[in-house]
Amino acid sequence: MLRTHTCGELNEKNVGQEVTLCGWVNTVRNLGSLCFVDLRDKYGITQLNIPTQLFEEKRVKPEYCIQAKGKVVLRDQPNYNIPTGLIEIEVEDIKIYSVSETTPFEIKDDTTASEDTRLVYRYLDLRRPVMQKYLKIRSDLNRYAREYLNDHGFQEIDTPTMIKSTPEGARDYLIPSRIYPGSFYALPQSPQVYKQLLMIAGTDRYFQLAHCYRDEDQRADRQPEFMQIDCELSFVTREDVLEVIEGLLKYIFKKTINVTLPDFYRMDYDVAISRYGSDKPDMRFDMLIEDVTKELEGCGFQAYENKSIRAIVVPNVASETTRKQMDNDNILAKKFRVFGVSHLKWENGAFVSNIVKNIKPENLDALAKRLNVKENDLVILCANEKGDQASLALGALRNYYGNKLGLCKKDDYKPLFVINWPLFERNEEGQIESLSNPFTRPNDEDLHYLDEDPTKIKSTSYDTVLNGVELSSGALRIYDSEIQKKVFELLGLSDEDIEKRFGFFVKALKYGVPPEGGFGIGVERLAMTLAMTDNVRDVIAFPKNLKAFEPMSQCPSPVPTADTDILGLKVVASEENE
Amino acid sequence: MLRTHTCGELNEKNVGQEVTLCGWVNTVRNLGSLCFVDLRDKYGITQLNIPTQLFEEKRVKPEYCIQAKGKVVLRDQPNYNIPTGLIEIEVEDIKIYSVSETTPFEIKDDTTASEDTRLVYRYLDLRRPVMQKYLKIRSDLNRYAREYLNDHGFQEIDTPTMIKSTPEGARDYLIPSRIYPGSFYALPQSPQVYKQLLMIAGTDRYFQLAHCYRDEDQRADRQPEFMQIDCELSFVTREDVLEVIEGLLKYIFKKTINVTLPDFYRMDYDVAISRYGSDKPDMRFDMLIEDVTKELEGCGFQAYENKSIRAIVVPNVASETTRKQMDNDNILAKKFRVFGVSHLKWENGAFVSNIVKNIKPENLDALAKRLNVKENDLVILCANEKGDQASLALGALRNYYGNKLGLCKKDDYKPLFVINWPLFERNEEGQIESLSNPFTRPNDEDLHYLDEDPTKIKSTSYDTVLNGVELSSGALRIYDSEIQKKVFELLGLSDEDIEKRFGFFVKALKYGVPPEGGFGIGVERLAMTLAMTDNVRDVIAFPKNLKAFEPMSQCPSPVPTADTDILGLKVVASEENE
Repeated sequence: MLRTHTCGELNEKNVGQEVTLCGWVNTVRNLGSLCFVDLRDKYGITQLNIPTQLFEEKRVKPEYCIQAKGKVVLRDQPNYNIPTGLIEIEVEDIKIYSVSETTPFEIKDDTTASEDTRLVYRYLDLRRPVMQKYLKIRSDLNRYAREYLNDHGFQEIDTPTMIKSTPEGARDYLIPSRIYPGSFYALPQSPQVYKQLLMIAGTDRYFQLAHCYRDEDQRADRQPEFMQIDCELSFVTREDVLEVIEGLLKYIFKKTINVTLPDFYRMDYDVAISRYGSDKPDMRFDMLIEDVTKELEGCGFQAYENKSIRAIVVPNVASETTRKQMDNDNILAKKFRVFGVSHLKWENGAFVSNIVKNIKPENLDALAKRLNVKENDLVILCANEKGDQASLALGALRNYYGNKLGLCKKDDYKPLFVINWPLFERNEEGQIESLSNPFTRPNDEDLHYLDEDPTKIKSTSYDTVLNGVELSSGALRIYDSEIQKKVFELLGLSDEDIEKRFGFFVKALKYGVPPEGGFGIGVERLAMTLAMTDNVRDVIAFPKNLKAFEPMSQCPSPVPTADTDILGLKVVASEENE
Repeated sequence: MLRTHTCGELNEKNVGQEVTLCGWVNTVRNLGSLCFVDLRDKYGITQLNIPTQLFEEKRVKPEYCIQAKGKVVLRDQPNYNIPTGLIEIEVEDIKIYSVSETTPFEIKDDTTASEDTRLVYRYLDLRRPVMQKYLKIRSDLNRYAREYLNDHGFQEIDTPTMIKSTPEGARDYLIPSRIYPGSFYALPQSPQVYKQLLMIAGTDRYFQLAHCYRDEDQRADRQPEFMQIDCELSFVTREDVLEVIEGLLKYIFKKTINVTLPDFYRMDYDVAISRYGSDKPDMRFDMLIEDVTKELEGCGFQAYENKSIRAIVVPNVASETTRKQMDNDNILAKKFRVFGVSHLKWENGAFVSNIVKNIKPENLDALAKRLNVKENDLVILCANEKGDQASLALGALRNYYGNKLGLCKKDDYKPLFVINWPLFERNEEGQIESLSNPFTRPNDEDLHYLDEDPTKIKSTSYDTVLNGVELSSGALRIYDSEIQKKVFELLGLSDEDIEKRFGFFVKALKYGVPPEGGFGIGVERLAMTLAMTDNVRDVIAFPKNLKAFEPMSQCPSPVPTADTDILGLKVVASEENE
């Protein structure tokens, strides 16, 4: 090694030792008679005390990469904020490995550089300690995920990333074939089919930290390529799988950020929707949604007639709730296809609201009693033909107020599983659609509904939710060919459709399928949660921007015509679009 | 869990226990009064003893996936060859999870199915225990590689797999961009540029089990996609990197197949070529190449005049060496651009050969003495203007005879590093070319040759070789911009070339580059070595065939025109080529 120590490890115990450090010049303070240089590497910063003559000779500047030899001594003016703050190096010799031009932004955590500049100079951006911390959290998460799964009998298997394009769901990224011009491979959206094939192959317990790809228009937290902790296991019940997810996430949180997650709550999908107004309930606070249809039955207010009515109580905010706030609440609520919400303030023992005059006093009394309102509470009501829509609207407001009131503490962790999802829903044309994929197994006790009323069937699907964020989803898979056939029929799939959409996979189902299930955990989402950042690009070493473009290497880019010719392709749109 | 035990763990200690097993019906032996079924899962096979009536009712057949409940009892006829061979299950109940059609081939290790059939039904092929063993070895190799590197301060970082296409080396697989029609991403041939950027970013010790892609015409041991244990570390000497490789491989061999590798030998490239006739020397046997130019100087044989002459001695095979054998040797030798080889048999104290009459007796004496020949030895001579070509030709024969004589034992492991490679070579037009990449650092002591005679420069490159197989290669990288500039000049690269070929990377070199180096180990090659198989498809779960085609999913395949339209592409070759 060209160094004896890193820049993060020397302290008062090393005083007197001759050491050699390597790193980047973080700052230079030339005081004339003295010259101090902070030397930085991944592990920390150590102060170099450089004799004037040597400094004059070497003239090191910020971001030069250097080697410094010298003796560890105590500092005159200790810095108790950093581990190496009690010592400095009396430098005897410096070797400059390489010089640096002035960097386009200063290498420090609180940079003012735009994200685009940071992405162009990503190799400089990543020198900032906070970025190294983010990368470390992601690496640790991957490491401990693997450690846990390996220790629990799972085997990591690399499934192919050049696969067949399938005509459904999100758009595939395609890879033209040179050997078969006009044919294409696709990048996988997930290893779903392959992991189920591995179970059919008898692999028993599989996992993979899998590269996944989706050609979608970018949202803030999406990237063209992302990773997934992908897992599948045979001969299991739903609870067996949930135990793996729970154990895995507890282990990752403990090992990566030293947080002990509490036991995971199990919540029915119906409860999540009706009480939290969300399939991703944030359980860090209550403010639960109440069904007050009964209390307001025959209340005289026409807008509430024959509607399902839901309510939340926002505590102690009535007096500060302005007209503007109420308008904003309505804008948010209307995104859920409801007419709007009504605000009722409880002031001096009575409701104050522009709808109060329309509602009979006995109904208002019943409402107040049911909701157990207290002085200065704000009651928000939402009425709709479908109670679920009213709940979803109030669920959004619940999250809004929960955040506003500081009820969503970053270091409070409330994980749960949302279970017993509907297997099907009817789309607007009344056609039955699958909520996940057509291989998801119905709950055994609901199988009889396959013939009676399929929308009543609950499935073995499960989502893992933490503080309002969906961390993973999964399900048990159908292993019985008769049930599979019925599901295909209900979905209106002809044999031809099935062959086209699931082809070779359905063939595999003829050769002995085990009862099995699995899950996928989004690595970036989990890394963001662990790192407490809202920017997905913080947890990716070299991310694309929101336009799926990589500013550093200027990628994607045109290629020579010869490269497309050999693929049997002609670029027809480049002139118009570039 | 739907089982209490796996099919590999029950033995005489479990006698009397009520158990539940799950798995696939491996074999059915219906003896009328008795019915035996071997139940198979990933972990082993357990014999089920099924009462006639239950069997009549369930009628299980091979590859049905079932659950069986019953009691563990001692077998009447023990099988001492398998761990569960002393017991069987007296079955009380059977549940059939799913039936199976008759499989296209029997699920057993020594299948006679063609590889193409096996690939079409890969999920059945993988049920064969030997395939599960291969997959396990690969998984273990990955697991322990990560374990070692994590434990030695390396951090795994996922680098992008949708990157900029670069106009050199092997052909990139391209990914058309939808957002920028006419532009393309490329799949990476390796993370080389990104890992060097990570070192510039101060990441210090990086690794990744990286997906790599090359659009080459397939050779037997190549696949379009493959993986690499990719590693890079800063502030190191060559020896520091070699220690990491050595420690890593020793750990992997020990943990994966319980083999203790000996310490790795360090051999100069020049020695490898001159004494072993190969840059991948197989050190399991000697039969070293000798330079006998001096012994044959002025020997009178015209073909040897002013030539460099090399020799190997193949022990004790003279009498069995036929004319045909000698012809075959010549065919092999001529692949190395030499005229051929001469065979001299040492019989009854004298050389027997058709060239003996052309060579003076004193030269023959000197040769015999120098080579210390013994009765029945075969001496093979090769003469060429360039001694290295003669050595390479004899190196091929050395390997051939080493194998033929059984000197290459599969369980004998002789690892080494080949070091001090030439930095440059001259191509046939006399232009200097890089032997690896233009960022490879020359040895410090050879820097002066940059101005004098660049072809004399030895580089910091290193290959890891095991039993004639190259397992990894790597080098230290240039960190000094002046040296980098000289290397670019020597390679005849204009500023424009540099910008076009290395663009954004060269820009990064301006901001403080650490002395660093790294290596890449081919995962498939290493897995094949550990698994002792010559078929690369054995160590890939779902491989492509030699035509880069995946027979199970029929991939690559045509896609709807709409899918190419949206990419701004037109397929022009499909009609001619399909």
